[in-house]
Amino acid sequence: MAFEKMIRNAFEESRNNCRFGDTLEEISEIQDYIRTSQKICIPNKNGIKVEVLNQVLSEYGLPSAEILHINTNTADTSRIPALAKAYMALDQSDADLIIARGRLGIPGSGSLLIFIDNKGRILTCGTSPSHLIHQKSIEEAVYSEACEALEKIGFERVVGP
Amino acid sequence: MAFEKMIRNAFEESRNNCRFGDTLEEISEIQDYIRTSQKICIPNKNGIKVEVLNQVLSEYGLPSAEILHINTNTADTSRIPALAKAYMALDQSDADLIIARGRLGIPGSGSLLIFIDNKGRILTCGTSPSHLIHQKSIEEAVYSEACEALEKIGFERVVGP
Repeated sequence: MAFEKMIRNAFEESRNNCRFGDTLEEISEIQDYIRTSQKICIPNKNGIKVEVLNQVLSEYGLPSAEILHINTNTADTSRIPALAKAYMALDQSDADLIIARGRLGIPGSGSLLIFIDNKGRILTCGTSPSHLIHQKSIEEAVYSEACEALEKIGFERVVGP
Repeated sequence: MAFEKMIRNAFEESRNNCRFGDTLEEISEIQDYIRTSQKICIPNKNGIKVEVLNQVLSEYGLPSAEILHINTNTADTSRIPALAKAYMALDQSDADLIIARGRLGIPGSGSLLIFIDNKGRILTCGTSPSHLIHQKSIEEAVYSEACEALEKIGFERVVGP
């Protein structure tokens, strides 16, 4: 079932007060989309995040991503900077899956790693507090956000970290 | 420093390539906003979430919230249903803090508990996978999302769970 049909069905359920949470079919549809992505892009100025994200993708048996060199500084004027970065990448590439990381909301709100499809729809996410709270390196934070995002939609690790 | 000034400063840093993550001042500004909120609203049809959220708020020494009875079914047509619910509550109440919970993205993407201020700006969040993945009760899921959201911005529990 394509996302379009799934979204239409879910809204019909909500509208009729008979939506009782996500279904296994919906979750496996998201998994299939990610598994079969032909081109995965990560908007980034440098390659640090991409290296870590590709490590995580390979640990979960998923195709690897490529860097999309774009300057995303202006994303920080947006209400959800991470999502703004993802949309920039979507609009400037032919990727069918974008993984972007940026601030969740206002300064101080920590970070959000988000997966969107080729229409800009949100598939999953992982979050971290600000560095000052978690004290992790950027690599560790990106690593755990990516694992969180994949495990949230039922992916399991196929090789150890 | 008000959020407006803080947001302006942070963007100046981003624009000049000298933004190196959230600052303690920004985090404590968010804490102060939440601590001094006069009216906290939770859009909801029934009271389950509100009871759990008030338990968490009290465990972290924060003021309690009230339910805002609105039908949020149409939020599920939005790209970020949780945020759509929060905006509905913002636009239909005089609350200065809204805590809303709904789907993160497309069906299957799990849930998002989000805190927004009186201008709709995102302060923090907590997330959960779909029930089918985490197998927690709704009360347990809401509880852990709320703790995650508060701890993400440096709040500490003042009384035990």
